[in-house]
Amino acid sequence: MSGSVRVGVVGTGMIGQDHIRRITQVLSGADVTAVTDLSADLAQQVAAGLKDATVHATGQDVIGNENVDAVLVTSWGPTHEEYVLAGIAAGKPVFCEKPLATTQRACRNIIDAEVAAGRRLVQVGFMRRYDDAYRGLKNVIEAGTIGAPLMYYSGHRNPGVPDSYTTDMAIVDTAVHDFDVARWLLAEEFTGVQVLAPRRNRHGGDLQDPLLMILETTSGVLVSVETSVNIRYGYDIRGEVVGEDGTAALADRGQVVLRRGGTASGAVPQDWRERFIDAYDSELQDWINAVSAGAGATGPSSWDGYAAQVVCDAAVDALHSGERVAVDLIEKPAIYAGGQHP
Amino acid sequence: MSGSVRVGVVGTGMIGQDHIRRITQVLSGADVTAVTDLSADLAQQVAAGLKDATVHATGQDVIGNENVDAVLVTSWGPTHEEYVLAGIAAGKPVFCEKPLATTQRACRNIIDAEVAAGRRLVQVGFMRRYDDAYRGLKNVIEAGTIGAPLMYYSGHRNPGVPDSYTTDMAIVDTAVHDFDVARWLLAEEFTGVQVLAPRRNRHGGDLQDPLLMILETTSGVLVSVETSVNIRYGYDIRGEVVGEDGTAALADRGQVVLRRGGTASGAVPQDWRERFIDAYDSELQDWINAVSAGAGATGPSSWDGYAAQVVCDAAVDALHSGERVAVDLIEKPAIYAGGQHP
Amino acid sequence: MSGSVRVGVVGTGMIGQDHIRRITQVLSGADVTAVTDLSADLAQQVAAGLKDATVHATGQDVIGNENVDAVLVTSWGPTHEEYVLAGIAAGKPVFCEKPLATTQRACRNIIDAEVAAGRRLVQVGFMRRYDDAYRGLKNVIEAGTIGAPLMYYSGHRNPGVPDSYTTDMAIVDTAVHDFDVARWLLAEEFTGVQVLAPRRNRHGGDLQDPLLMILETTSGVLVSVETSVNIRYGYDIRGEVVGEDGTAALADRGQVVLRRGGTASGAVPQDWRERFIDAYDSELQDWINAVSAGAGATGPSSWDGYAAQVVCDAAVDALHSGERVAVDLIEKPAIYAGGQHP
Amino acid sequence: MSGSVRVGVVGTGMIGQDHIRRITQVLSGADVTAVTDLSADLAQQVAAGLKDATVHATGQDVIGNENVDAVLVTSWGPTHEEYVLAGIAAGKPVFCEKPLATTQRACRNIIDAEVAAGRRLVQVGFMRRYDDAYRGLKNVIEAGTIGAPLMYYSGHRNPGVPDSYTTDMAIVDTAVHDFDVARWLLAEEFTGVQVLAPRRNRHGGDLQDPLLMILETTSGVLVSVETSVNIRYGYDIRGEVVGEDGTAALADRGQVVLRRGGTASGAVPQDWRERFIDAYDSELQDWINAVSAGAGATGPSSWDGYAAQVVCDAAVDALHSGERVAVDLIEKPAIYAGGQHP
Repeated sequence: MSGSVRVGVVGTGMIGQDHIRRITQVLSGADVTAVTDLSADLAQQVAAGLKDATVHATGQDVIGNENVDAVLVTSWGPTHEEYVLAGIAAGKPVFCEKPLATTQRACRNIIDAEVAAGRRLVQVGFMRRYDDAYRGLKNVIEAGTIGAPLMYYSGHRNPGVPDSYTTDMAIVDTAVHDFDVARWLLAEEFTGVQVLAPRRNRHGGDLQDPLLMILETTSGVLVSVETSVNIRYGYDIRGEVVGEDGTAALADRGQVVLRRGGTASGAVPQDWRERFIDAYDSELQDWINAVSAGAGATGPSSWDGYAAQVVCDAAVDALHSGERVAVDLIEKPAIYAGGQHP
Repeated sequence: MSGSVRVGVVGTGMIGQDHIRRITQVLSGADVTAVTDLSADLAQQVAAGLKDATVHATGQDVIGNENVDAVLVTSWGPTHEEYVLAGIAAGKPVFCEKPLATTQRACRNIIDAEVAAGRRLVQVGFMRRYDDAYRGLKNVIEAGTIGAPLMYYSGHRNPGVPDSYTTDMAIVDTAVHDFDVARWLLAEEFTGVQVLAPRRNRHGGDLQDPLLMILETTSGVLVSVETSVNIRYGYDIRGEVVGEDGTAALADRGQVVLRRGGTASGAVPQDWRERFIDAYDSELQDWINAVSAGAGATGPSSWDGYAAQVVCDAAVDALHSGERVAVDLIEKPAIYAGGQHP
Repeated sequence: MSGSVRVGVVGTGMIGQDHIRRITQVLSGADVTAVTDLSADLAQQVAAGLKDATVHATGQDVIGNENVDAVLVTSWGPTHEEYVLAGIAAGKPVFCEKPLATTQRACRNIIDAEVAAGRRLVQVGFMRRYDDAYRGLKNVIEAGTIGAPLMYYSGHRNPGVPDSYTTDMAIVDTAVHDFDVARWLLAEEFTGVQVLAPRRNRHGGDLQDPLLMILETTSGVLVSVETSVNIRYGYDIRGEVVGEDGTAALADRGQVVLRRGGTASGAVPQDWRERFIDAYDSELQDWINAVSAGAGATGPSSWDGYAAQVVCDAAVDALHSGERVAVDLIEKPAIYAGGQHP
Repeated sequence: MSGSVRVGVVGTGMIGQDHIRRITQVLSGADVTAVTDLSADLAQQVAAGLKDATVHATGQDVIGNENVDAVLVTSWGPTHEEYVLAGIAAGKPVFCEKPLATTQRACRNIIDAEVAAGRRLVQVGFMRRYDDAYRGLKNVIEAGTIGAPLMYYSGHRNPGVPDSYTTDMAIVDTAVHDFDVARWLLAEEFTGVQVLAPRRNRHGGDLQDPLLMILETTSGVLVSVETSVNIRYGYDIRGEVVGEDGTAALADRGQVVLRRGGTASGAVPQDWRERFIDAYDSELQDWINAVSAGAGATGPSSWDGYAAQVVCDAAVDALHSGERVAVDLIEKPAIYAGGQHP
């Protein structure tokens, strides 16, 4: 592909606008040429801030537009399936924010379509895989420095959540990132999950917060995922791999050590934006580069989106039943083989 | 009590000798005046290194000796019950290395004897409660700085274990310290435990190592205990309390930051002695001080020894059954009330 | 300015190529449209990798070209003055790699030209001001969190240097960054400098390495600059501000804590690229944004380039004389007022 | 020597009482048997808290008493010379709090007496040499892990000082510890010193605080000593050795990592007692052990006390003159050879 990648954006809400800002002001090699949103006004308003972007009535119109080389799906989750399938049908690369789709059935439809197309066209927005610290962790594992991984602790801590947040969301919106990054770090699938409910945080009202989820992988690695979404002190993403010879953990993030008032302290990030802004940039730049190189998609795949969905479904069942629930995946199609993406 | 506390030592093996060295060369206010051991030769040899210590044929002789004010029980675990009971019968304060006794029945016998005596006479060797770092952790919790505790992660990592080490020992010898310190930090009893078996460490042979144990307390705090006893890199004792407003964790122990060959590093302790030598000193000094002040015992109690035994029994059951096992304690006698010892 | 900023590059050596890669593959809002180099072959070869970039015989040709909106000067230091002056004469914004020029006289010529032009057109490549950690340090100072700064330690450590490196270069190429960042952090000028020569590092041969330089500022802050350019362990940039109420220091950079073989360690950067790549990106993006907004220049100024040159000259004198040497600046023209750039 | 070392204490002020508490309640192998103080009432009162300690009118009486094996000099500095000389004359080991004496002449008199006695009898209270962290630093240096030392940064920070504190005291009472520990770490003497006066801390009133002192050693190592005695945030003792291949630094001391309110923090010690209490214990125990073994003295020597005095005198001169002042030592008597004490 010569010249900039022309991106059509389906859904211009908060995350859509953020990706548009990224493409136009931060990254290199792409332009936004077409947009749509459920709210025509919002789409119009966003387009007004862009050079030469056309506004369209529907996602299908954007995807079909001849000035669109690749599609960014940032609409409401339940609509993802339709737009991703349309992108595949049009033979255009698609970057779809997580979740890939909201049901296993929908995820499998996308996989089927991609398999029928004979190649990967879809990247899912699991940005943690592009985070330097997580990549450092993966490098340690792959180098064999700590021997085979035996356990992994993943802590997902948020200062607070809106009133609309439900306990299920702690799994499907929050822990889904921990599930994906654990699959990627360990290069394994999960086989089962149980969800334990500790004493509740008073800040969470009726919410069951925190949660402690224990998952197993095919080789027997135990993965422990904590979600603490009202913990006030910061947006703190923890991770430690326990191996046979040692451990590797995400370090604290403070860039300045302040000695003041009896303590030596470093700052903890306050929100996901601060913590992962570089990963979001890298993720989308990587996608643009892949599209530009004609590679379809090389980052987190539809398979990753599907596997995450199956784990989330099992975890929600486990939360409600109090029992361990098995994680059962279909056979992995060959086009996703070798897939430690990115 | 005027003058030095005259201590009789029952069992002069490794740990007994270490406590004798402590009393005679490090601590203040006590002398060792009588010793015994299953091996009369060993007892004789140890006594030879002491001023004025007599050697006796049996523990009962040591305990009954008129030159003995207080008793240190460092014999083989299964014999603890007998000597602790004898000490109580003689009205003499007893410091008993963990375990207090090797069965719940035996522990209850000791409790019954102490209750009958009308006051505490027994301190159990849970030295972690005397560690400065753990005390710092407890201070944070009690000050309310992080709100109510909701979860606690306890990691017990050992570079290696002898061939004689069994998987059950990972619970009764190793995790027992984590159980006790969690009870003490949280000021709560456990109500249940499950034991999960991750992929095995190749260094452990047939051993199920590591183990991940999940316990609940009466208020619902979830306690996660990891034992990794062949992890090579060091003797690393981890602990993190997750509260409503923040967390508090044991810090790394390195006293020197070395910048060399591409890394900035600190040393990790290599064995329990290095990690807890100060706690052992403080523990025994505290006991000597309490005895000297006529206080009987103020540190970890028979109740603590009993509760640890019940949790260990439940955890061993849980390991073998694969199921959650309830932790059922008898009613706590009044003499142990208020007991956040030390 | 509508559309992308069209950048002409004077000097396509290593640093020039790196900035070209940055503009074309990483940053947003600019294109490289014209290049030149002392080696016509090299210029030709670099241009071949670009879309639509023309090759020119001289820097003057690049600067005068109608398809060039702004100029990047990355040629050999002694030629900077000529090209920067040409850019100012053409009324085009100039980004000049450090040094601004190689003599105080040349720097003053540039200042005079800018003052005559009536506005700032030049940004100097002091990229540390764009580093997140340094910005965090400056934020702490400006917030008054540690009271007034009283001392500043700046450590500049390099694993090694090429054979061509001389002791003077430890000042003019290496410490110049420490001088600039100290001026910026403290918002003050230097008034004097002495240079002390410790015992030599055996890896440095005849080089006087390390150096310890002590500078004073107008308000009396003492700045201690260490250059250790053969220290093997890494590229480690240290900084600590000592204030009245506390201190603030650059934190270690490791993103992963590895526990292995008796230590807990984090990686130290291995070269300037790894340490400052994000700062280089931000620096040039900031310049592109300023140019695009018609702002001329908002980053480190010609004044900053001049002041750095005066300090370097004084430090070289102090090195050779063994005496304290005064730092004497001309009066600061009004167009550089308020200049805490960026 | 059989039995406990019988210690006579000359001076029962704050530090004397602290050492008495140490000997009687913390350490092993010594008793306090005789005391004196300028205030007879105070001496009487202190003795009342002891078993069998006699009160004497003068230090000479204590030193000469037949129930005194060894002498602890904790009187007012200007009286040290007299009591130390009396101890040597009596052939009794002396532990003398720093300073050994308040003039070089007095220090030399003590050295002469010890040389005449033919063996070391005096230990000076430079307790930092017994601190685990400093010992770790020394181990790294001696192991050659970082190559030859080239520079050493020593930071001595205090939250505040009493009104009676003078700028000279920042040298003779405060920095003297940094001087001694640097001599010991580097195993070298100083050859010169300059004292620089940064902008003053507003909390210090007329005090010249902080100070930055630059010293050289015989091999050319540069030692930079900062005293900041009103820095509020804590009692923070910093130290970093810069070697040819890397650096080694004293680590932060926090034992608990608290994550709360946007930061991850560790506690900084708040006073010298908290920071060095273990070192004081080890120091005095080491002395008791040496005395008990008939070794005279093995810790920091009269030579160390003398050398510290010479450096302090030079530094005070340098402070007042603004010039570098040479440090000139007499020839080191053979009885102090090999003396990396302890």
